Amino acid sequence: MTSDRTFGITLLGCGIVGSGVARILTEQREMLQRRTGMTFDIRHVVVRNAAKTRAGDLTVSTDFKAAIESKETDIVIELIGGTGAAKTAIETALRLGKPIVTANKSLLAAHGAELFALAKKHNTCIAFEASAGGGVPIINALTRGLIANRIDALVGIVNGTCNVILTRMTRNGWTYEQALAEAQEKGFAEADPTMDVSGRDAAQKLALLASLAFNARVTEGDIYVEGIETLQKVDIEFAKEMGYIIKLLAIAERAADDRLCLRVHPTLVHHEDVLAEVSGSFNAISVYGNSLGHSLFYGRGAGAMPTASAVVADLVSVAMGTTQIEFKQLRVFPDTTAAAKILPFHELQSRYYLRLMARDVPGVLAQVTTALGEAGISLSAIHQRETDAGQFVPVIITTHLAKEGAMQAALQVIDALPVIGRPSACLRIIDPPLEFAGN
Amino acid sequence: MTSDRTFGITLLGCGIVGSGVARILTEQREMLQRRTGMTFDIRHVVVRNAAKTRAGDLTVSTDFKAAIESKETDIVIELIGGTGAAKTAIETALRLGKPIVTANKSLLAAHGAELFALAKKHNTCIAFEASAGGGVPIINALTRGLIANRIDALVGIVNGTCNVILTRMTRNGWTYEQALAEAQEKGFAEADPTMDVSGRDAAQKLALLASLAFNARVTEGDIYVEGIETLQKVDIEFAKEMGYIIKLLAIAERAADDRLCLRVHPTLVHHEDVLAEVSGSFNAISVYGNSLGHSLFYGRGAGAMPTASAVVADLVSVAMGTTQIEFKQLRVFPDTTAAAKILPFHELQSRYYLRLMARDVPGVLAQVTTALGEAGISLSAIHQRETDAGQFVPVIITTHLAKEGAMQAALQVIDALPVIGRPSACLRIIDPPLEFAGN
Repeated sequence: MTSDRTFGITLLGCGIVGSGVARILTEQREMLQRRTGMTFDIRHVVVRNAAKTRAGDLTVSTDFKAAIESKETDIVIELIGGTGAAKTAIETALRLGKPIVTANKSLLAAHGAELFALAKKHNTCIAFEASAGGGVPIINALTRGLIANRIDALVGIVNGTCNVILTRMTRNGWTYEQALAEAQEKGFAEADPTMDVSGRDAAQKLALLASLAFNARVTEGDIYVEGIETLQKVDIEFAKEMGYIIKLLAIAERAADDRLCLRVHPTLVHHEDVLAEVSGSFNAISVYGNSLGHSLFYGRGAGAMPTASAVVADLVSVAMGTTQIEFKQLRVFPDTTAAAKILPFHELQSRYYLRLMARDVPGVLAQVTTALGEAGISLSAIHQRETDAGQFVPVIITTHLAKEGAMQAALQVIDALPVIGRPSACLRIIDPPLEFAGN
Repeated sequence: MTSDRTFGITLLGCGIVGSGVARILTEQREMLQRRTGMTFDIRHVVVRNAAKTRAGDLTVSTDFKAAIESKETDIVIELIGGTGAAKTAIETALRLGKPIVTANKSLLAAHGAELFALAKKHNTCIAFEASAGGGVPIINALTRGLIANRIDALVGIVNGTCNVILTRMTRNGWTYEQALAEAQEKGFAEADPTMDVSGRDAAQKLALLASLAFNARVTEGDIYVEGIETLQKVDIEFAKEMGYIIKLLAIAERAADDRLCLRVHPTLVHHEDVLAEVSGSFNAISVYGNSLGHSLFYGRGAGAMPTASAVVADLVSVAMGTTQIEFKQLRVFPDTTAAAKILPFHELQSRYYLRLMARDVPGVLAQVTTALGEAGISLSAIHQRETDAGQFVPVIITTHLAKEGAMQAALQVIDALPVIGRPSACLRIIDPPLEFAGN
C-alpha cells in the first residue's frame, strides 16, 4: 500500500474494545495523520443488534457481509469474539484479500493455523497483537524483536481478572468468594467468570504466545490447566510468610529434550521475582531467550483503551504493508510450523508447596515424610503450624524438585492416611532463574 | 528486498557487541534461516587494528571504505561507536543506498536528524534498536507498538553500570567507591567510568527515547544531568527506611503546556514501583501512554549477547524491507520533527528529600523550616535522627510538590545557616502514578 492514503475501515463488533478503537480513531485522528501520513476512516460498524449499539456519528448495520465486501472497506477489524460469526466474517474478508486486525484469542487458539493459511493463500494477513497481553506489544516482541533468540521459557500473568482477585486476597486477606464478588462489582470479572477463573482464558493466550515463542503449533488441549476457584486464603498467607506470592501463571518451558511443558496454575512466585510485583489488572510476560536472557513486558492486560491501543497499532502496520511482508516472509506463525511435542504433565519437574491438615498426634509427620520419601520426593522445609485450637493443625511442606506424577501419587497416599484431614493443598513453586539473583 | 535471499553483511567494529553479532549469525544461522527464509553472511569485518582482532574464520581488514563499497555488502552493521570514524562510515554507506544497523547512541544523540535525513535522501534506512535499552525492544515499541498513544511520560533505568553500583550500595550498605571498584573488577564499569556514572550515557539514551516518544527533537544538551558519584550511603539507608529505593532515573515528562521536562538524576522511587525491583545490570523503561496507561519494558541493558540480539533483529527487519517502509512512512524520527520545547529545569515540580546535618542546639528546626516556608515549600515529613554522638545530627525532610528553583534557593539559605554543616543532600522523589495504587 502507498503513502498518504486514506484507509476505509470496517469495524465488526462495537462493544468495549470496539468503542475504544472508534474513540482512538476519532480523537487521535490528527496525531495518527501526523505520525503516519495516513488517515483511517471507519466506514462501517457491524453489530448483532443495531438498536442497542451507540457508536457516535457512525452508521451501524447488521450486515457484515455487505460491509466487508464494500469497496469502501480496505481493512477489517474483527472484535466480535468467539469462534462462530467471527470466523465466518474473517474468512469472508480474507477470501477478498482484505487484511484482518483481531483481538480474538479463542478463535486463533482454535483455528489459527487454518486462518493464517487462508490469509496467505489470498495474499493478505492477520494482525493479532491485541489477542494476548492487552496493549503490551508482546506478539511483536516474540515474532520480531526477539527473533534472534532461541526462547527457553515464557512465564506470564496473562489474565487480569485472576490477578485482581489474587491481589485482593494477598493484600487484604480476603477469601476467593469475597474478592470475586468485588471484582464483579467493579467490572473486572464477568457475571459468569468461569472462562477467567478456571484458567481457560490464560490457556488460550498461552497457546498463542507459546506457538510464536517456540515456533510450534500449540493448542489449548496441550496445556494443563488449574484455576484459582479452590485457592484458600490460608495458603496465600502461609506462602507469604515463606516469601512467596501466589499468582496464576501461564508457563511454557522447553525441556532438555526440546519437548514443551505447558501449564496454567496458581504458582508460588518468590517475592523478589518481578512477577510478584505485578498487581491488579496488570499483565506481565517474562521471556527467557538464549541471547537476550530475561526480558519482561508489562502493562494493562485488558480494558477498552489498552486493547484498542494494540488494535490501532496493528492497523497502522497493516496500512503500511509491513505486516503483510512479515506474514509472508517469517515462518513463525502456526500455519508454517509443526505441532509442538508436548511433555506429559506428570513428567513435569517442579518444587511443591503442600499444606496438610494433620491430626495433632504422635507419628503423623513420620507417616507423611515416609510417603514422600517412598515416592522419591525430598523435603526442602517443613513447618508444623500452631493453631488456635482443634484437632487438625496445618503442616506446611516445601519440596525440592520432584516429578508431578510422583507428587500426585504421594499425595494420594497421604490423603488416605487416617491422620490427615482433606483436602490437602498442593501448589507448585517456580524459582527465579539464576539471572535474578545476581547482577 | 525479496524472499529467500542471502544478504552480505559488513561488520564495522568487532569488539564485545560485534563478536556477539558474529556469534549469533554463526551459531543461529539455521534457526534464522528457518524463521526468516533468509541467510546472513558476514563478508567483511573492519576494525582499526586487524592484528588485535579475533573473529574466528572471518577475514578482517582495516579498509572500511572498500568493505562498504564492495558489491558483496548489502547491509552495514556499525559497532565502532563514537562520533568520528563511525559517522564517516555510516555516511559512506548511506550515500550508496546501503542500510545501516547501529548501536551508536552517542552518534544518534548528536547527529541523528542529519543522518536520518541522509538515509531518506538515498532511499535507505537506519535501524537502531540496539542503541538504547540493550536487547529490550523499546525503540520498536515506541515507534510502532505504542503509536496510537500520546505519550505523557517515560521513566527509565537505562544505565546498567549505575544500576549495578546502586544495587550493591542498597543491598549491602557499601559506599559508592567500594561498589564502583567491584563493578570495575567484574567488568560492569570501565576503567574510566565517567560516561556512565556521570549520567551522560543515560542522557544520550534519553535524548533518543524522548525524541521518539514525543515526536520532537531532543538533544543531550536539553537534559538536566546529575550522576551518582556523590551519592552517600546514608541517604540510601534513610530513603530505604522511608520505603524508597534510590535509582538513577532518566525521566521525560510532558508538562501541562506540552513542554518537555527532561532529566537524569538519582531519584527516590517508592518500593512498590516496579522500577524499584529492577536490580543489577538490568534496564527497565516505564512508558505512560494515554490509551495504554502504564507499560514497562525490562531486560538486560548491556552486554555482548543482549545487544547483539537487538542488532540481529534489526538486521532481519532491514533484510525484509519493513524498516525501510517504516522509516519512509512514519514521521516519528528526529529528521521529521521539530525541536522539542523544553521546560527549564528550575521550573520542574517535584517532591524532595533533604538530608541536613544540623547542630544539635535549640531553634535549628525553626530556622530550617522558616527558610523552606519562605520559599513556599511545604513539608511532608521531618525526622531528626539520633546518632551515636557528635555535634551534628542528620535531619531528614521530605517535601510536598515544590519548584526546583525554589528548592535550590531555599537550600542556599539553609546551607548558609551557621547551625547547618555542609554539604546537605537534596534528592528528588518520584511518586508512582495513581494507576499503581489500585487495580
